[in-house]
Amino acid sequence: MKILVINCGSSSLKYQLINMENEEAIAQGLVERIGIEGSILTQKVPGRDKYIVQQPMATHKEAIQHVIESLTDKEHGVITSMDEINAVGHRVVHGGEKYAASVVINDEVMAQLEECTKLAPLHNPANIIGINSCKELMPKTPMVGVFDTAFHQTMDKQAYIYPLPYELYEKHGIRKYGFHGTSHKFVSAQVAEMMGKNIEDVNIITCHLGNGASLAAVKGGKVVDTSMGFTPLEGIAMGTRCGNIDPAIAMFLMREENMTADDVDNLFNKKSGVLGISGVSSDFRDIENAAKEGNARAELSLDVYNFRVREMIGAYAAAMGGVDAVVFTAGLGENSPTTREAICEGLQFMGIKIDSEKNNVRGKAVEVSATDATVKVFVVPTNEELMIARDTKTLTTK
Amino acid sequence: MKILVINCGSSSLKYQLINMENEEAIAQGLVERIGIEGSILTQKVPGRDKYIVQQPMATHKEAIQHVIESLTDKEHGVITSMDEINAVGHRVVHGGEKYAASVVINDEVMAQLEECTKLAPLHNPANIIGINSCKELMPKTPMVGVFDTAFHQTMDKQAYIYPLPYELYEKHGIRKYGFHGTSHKFVSAQVAEMMGKNIEDVNIITCHLGNGASLAAVKGGKVVDTSMGFTPLEGIAMGTRCGNIDPAIAMFLMREENMTADDVDNLFNKKSGVLGISGVSSDFRDIENAAKEGNARAELSLDVYNFRVREMIGAYAAAMGGVDAVVFTAGLGENSPTTREAICEGLQFMGIKIDSEKNNVRGKAVEVSATDATVKVFVVPTNEELMIARDTKTLTTK
Repeated sequence: MKILVINCGSSSLKYQLINMENEEAIAQGLVERIGIEGSILTQKVPGRDKYIVQQPMATHKEAIQHVIESLTDKEHGVITSMDEINAVGHRVVHGGEKYAASVVINDEVMAQLEECTKLAPLHNPANIIGINSCKELMPKTPMVGVFDTAFHQTMDKQAYIYPLPYELYEKHGIRKYGFHGTSHKFVSAQVAEMMGKNIEDVNIITCHLGNGASLAAVKGGKVVDTSMGFTPLEGIAMGTRCGNIDPAIAMFLMREENMTADDVDNLFNKKSGVLGISGVSSDFRDIENAAKEGNARAELSLDVYNFRVREMIGAYAAAMGGVDAVVFTAGLGENSPTTREAICEGLQFMGIKIDSEKNNVRGKAVEVSATDATVKVFVVPTNEELMIARDTKTLTTK
Repeated sequence: MKILVINCGSSSLKYQLINMENEEAIAQGLVERIGIEGSILTQKVPGRDKYIVQQPMATHKEAIQHVIESLTDKEHGVITSMDEINAVGHRVVHGGEKYAASVVINDEVMAQLEECTKLAPLHNPANIIGINSCKELMPKTPMVGVFDTAFHQTMDKQAYIYPLPYELYEKHGIRKYGFHGTSHKFVSAQVAEMMGKNIEDVNIITCHLGNGASLAAVKGGKVVDTSMGFTPLEGIAMGTRCGNIDPAIAMFLMREENMTADDVDNLFNKKSGVLGISGVSSDFRDIENAAKEGNARAELSLDVYNFRVREMIGAYAAAMGGVDAVVFTAGLGENSPTTREAICEGLQFMGIKIDSEKNNVRGKAVEVSATDATVKVFVVPTNEELMIARDTKTLTTK
């Protein structure tokens, strides 16, 4: 069984064709600059050179057409016909309160996704366009939607209701939803397996530290709290997003700087985080280099970042009434031993202690805690595409 | 030595005359509805009936005039002349980055306070008017300013710099300041004393839970982090304030509800918190009663409140690398055994455990933790007026 996984952004598209017999990617690719001059498709197949297609792609439908052609290309492809694709799994950012699990896409689901667009105006429209394009090009292939928010629907009301007028929740759905759910679910399940335990019996703090970043407190396979909220802006500091700040700052900036709501949204989402503090970059490698060269603001941005993650780990241990394991994943979490070590520094009092030697690892699933640590620390590469493919398989084979 | 402590709000004024020989209040009072029809002064003297003055008080100066008259009144007063007041201590909300300690007020200080007004437009103007009025009425009496922000100036940059463009800190002073500093300092010092330890040697989490509420992580007498921020809106949920929420919600409301910045400020500050969730009241006694009668939203508001304080305690333990004591103070913290117990429920894993019997106490300085708890829990009534008087005494007697 072969499953195509599609992740549509506003002007880009990531895809993987996964062989479900061994759960390995047969091919993976990225289309960039959709609808913009200079559209480009890059496809990687293990053991081969990169295959690049540079052609105008005005729409997501044209981009997906090129994806199918690249996958079935006689010379560079990996399958002989589109019919070999048994099902398509789509990443969908926002499933609102409607979807606590993945779902086979039908007309009713599409209508619901349209409704969720108000909650994720930057993300859901691209996801919907991607699904519609696939449906047109592969009308007989079953499609599944996998939501970033679904895993977090296991949260209790005490965690997801904000201290705001309750009417705003009823009228607009203003509540904490949480994102990166597919990743938090994947790595927490894998950690339980690595511990030789049932997921029902462990309390895990999952740290998804990429350019966007969030933590989740996963107790017995359910989310007790997560750091992103109504939107992916809330929580810890990120590459360019501010995370938790005094909410009054938005209004202060509007008054003092004559900014509009859109200006502030843009500032908080694109110009803040470690980029804002450091003034150097949103890429931690650049910031670490600058810090090493003595740039005080670069160093400060790392200190602020680590301090805020460290506090969130403490908060989530308290939320669950204790913690058995902490796991780091995503770009920074998987690849920065120094970040992991800096975050865990000072958490010895709660049994968290990293072994520097074991921790000197990148992109591998391993335990990195000291032998005398009572809380285990893991690195686990996330694999959202595989999670999407697994759910797609489950829902389309009966 | 007798010190008058003044705490001016926009339309109210609290005062205490304190005898510094025994640190006891000789008289305390409250003026309400200054500049509004129905101005009223209420003065309490231990062992006597309340003394009430109902007269028009158009300005703070007139109100302070009445305070002096009430204190020196032949029948109801406690001193024979204004000259018996050796010094006046003023509570000032915002000292910005300029004041890390209390200060004798002179022209330079007054100019600085005016500058801080932009940072605390709701509070500092009333404080300034109060000081000026006192200076006019008691030109020879030394005055001292004691700042709500001062104790928190001991914070490190990693805690007070927000993940925002650094230029906003440089240009507007947008950073975490923290409030209730006088209270956090007072109760942390008292806890160290009750533990028979030097403040330098203990890590204390101070929970100031009043209508406004904040926590502080106090390590060795210095603040490592505190939950209020640039303004008193940030942090845990409060009576009517939202505390930490997704910053994007402000902009969402402006777009979807056509609200102005002032509308959102008002909503977040006056209509949110436990009032917003419960729809019942901002007073925890009303909410607890409603919850007992089966009001689900009232119960939810308490759950949200306790959950958020519990997480903040975990966060601050992590921030300090461990915690020796937790202390509850202010209206709710001193007087609600159920709140204290609900907050600490589930924190046993970190050594926090309340003894229900010891905890059945209101407004007294006592230890309430179980004998086998490794982290001590205390209740300590705060006394900001006494702290202000002590600082005033120190700075005016040399």
